[in-house]
Amino acid sequence: MRENKFQLRINWGDTDKAGIVYYPNYFKWFDIAGHQFFRSIGLAPSELEEKHNVIIPLLDARCSFEEPLLYDDIITIKTVVEEINRKTIKLKHEVYRGDTRTGHGYEVRGWVKEVEGKYKAVLIPDEIREVLQEKVEVEFTQKNPWLSA
Amino acid sequence: MRENKFQLRINWGDTDKAGIVYYPNYFKWFDIAGHQFFRSIGLAPSELEEKHNVIIPLLDARCSFEEPLLYDDIITIKTVVEEINRKTIKLKHEVYRGDTRTGHGYEVRGWVKEVEGKYKAVLIPDEIREVLQEKVEVEFTQKNPWLSA
Amino acid sequence: MRENKFQLRINWGDTDKAGIVYYPNYFKWFDIAGHQFFRSIGLAPSELEEKHNVIIPLLDARCSFEEPLLYDDIITIKTVVEEINRKTIKLKHEVYRGDTRTGHGYEVRGWVKEVEGKYKAVLIPDEIREVLQEKVEVEFTQKNPWLSA
Amino acid sequence: MRENKFQLRINWGDTDKAGIVYYPNYFKWFDIAGHQFFRSIGLAPSELEEKHNVIIPLLDARCSFEEPLLYDDIITIKTVVEEINRKTIKLKHEVYRGDTRTGHGYEVRGWVKEVEGKYKAVLIPDEIREVLQEKVEVEFTQKNPWLSA
Repeated sequence: MRENKFQLRINWGDTDKAGIVYYPNYFKWFDIAGHQFFRSIGLAPSELEEKHNVIIPLLDARCSFEEPLLYDDIITIKTVVEEINRKTIKLKHEVYRGDTRTGHGYEVRGWVKEVEGKYKAVLIPDEIREVLQEKVEVEFTQKNPWLSA
Repeated sequence: MRENKFQLRINWGDTDKAGIVYYPNYFKWFDIAGHQFFRSIGLAPSELEEKHNVIIPLLDARCSFEEPLLYDDIITIKTVVEEINRKTIKLKHEVYRGDTRTGHGYEVRGWVKEVEGKYKAVLIPDEIREVLQEKVEVEFTQKNPWLSA
Repeated sequence: MRENKFQLRINWGDTDKAGIVYYPNYFKWFDIAGHQFFRSIGLAPSELEEKHNVIIPLLDARCSFEEPLLYDDIITIKTVVEEINRKTIKLKHEVYRGDTRTGHGYEVRGWVKEVEGKYKAVLIPDEIREVLQEKVEVEFTQKNPWLSA
Repeated sequence: MRENKFQLRINWGDTDKAGIVYYPNYFKWFDIAGHQFFRSIGLAPSELEEKHNVIIPLLDARCSFEEPLLYDDIITIKTVVEEINRKTIKLKHEVYRGDTRTGHGYEVRGWVKEVEGKYKAVLIPDEIREVLQEKVEVEFTQKNPWLSA
């Protein structure tokens, strides 16, 4: 299945008074990682919407928290397609600081089409299904250079 | 000039690793206070848009930070019309914990009308101007009872 | 089991370009609802920490999204204890707009004590367990009057 | 004066129901840009705090909004030291999409030292002053490659 990785730095505003990351931020990163994933396979959400009238709303999301994350930590979010169902896609997201996984979870997104002003879940087309199923080795060229600044 | 007050509790997620409120939250409260102000004078932003095609976009915002705010603090945001210009309104916002002002600032919002799909700043109508200028004593009945829970 | 309810208004900043609530906000509300729940049973998180050196970190969180929420919607978040394990508590959260449930999920929180600078999950004391298990009819007096403004 | 530039992508969650960026996000970016600026001149805030007991709290922030920003836009935030006062530093931040400036403003931060558990604004040391005043040509090597993905 297709996968993607990218990096973020933990910002000051991501922390809370316990000195660690405030947990709802994981779901912001999952959302960003989901969009970044679709971009990486040539299906940027903005193009899906403009060209194909397709949106990918969230149906279900979960995260298990394993280790605290701190200000200035650089994290890698690894996203992989876990399931392709008839009308939904499940993306697995894992957050790593170096080799330590700090949390993991998933997003289930629908494949929803606008037809005459109404939104309806529809079958995921075969050509999309094929792209999602491809096994592509991700060379991790998406390292973010200013993170090392 | 018209004014409004309402209360909020500082949530866990509003704090940062210094143990105090992360400053961009002040601007979230200003935005909420601005919407709450217009609601309180019978000009709820959703009605302005739906009935009058008027939106009130932000042109300028500023905040000076005086005292740190902590988790669980209950704050009162006091909003008052500071200036009514031809096409813009300036709202002054002050944040208090008890009698201590912890920060203050302003929002300048435009009076913008959609005409044939285009947005254009227009003159603030006289009847709106009159409502904004009214001197109304705010009885502070908007205390939030579950804040004391 | 103990439960709590309280109300929030959907703010402008809670929405995204689809015109509906941006989903990570549900987890912010769950976090607020969790804190509000502990407050409502006399175990405010700030007191737990200051008096008992107990913190309640998040271990797992999930949300299923059922119906979109819109700007200005007033929601009621209903929280109930779903499980009390040896060292963890599971809170179920449901979000309602009027009679319509728009989403539901849970938080699993640990019962963690600081002993000599180290944090360790410990057994939930019997007196806490009893409070959590009590069946108390919640009279919904926590309605927020300025929400109707 | 020293300056820094870095890039961000506008995320889905940065937008609101008007389809444009929700304005308090500008202040999040200003905060991130401020931290990134201090990192870029060898004065990372985490080191300032750990090694020198110095923190740089926000005293004043302002932003003027010129053009709307949209989902997927790639922005460059340009930060430059505008004033160095006895105990405060003023950073000017400008946000660009391509050649178009979409907003600009500033942050005033204090130079605050912890001495025996108390925080006090102190004189900015000469060696810091010199670093801040240096005219260094910023080669824009901080372009973020995964933004083009």
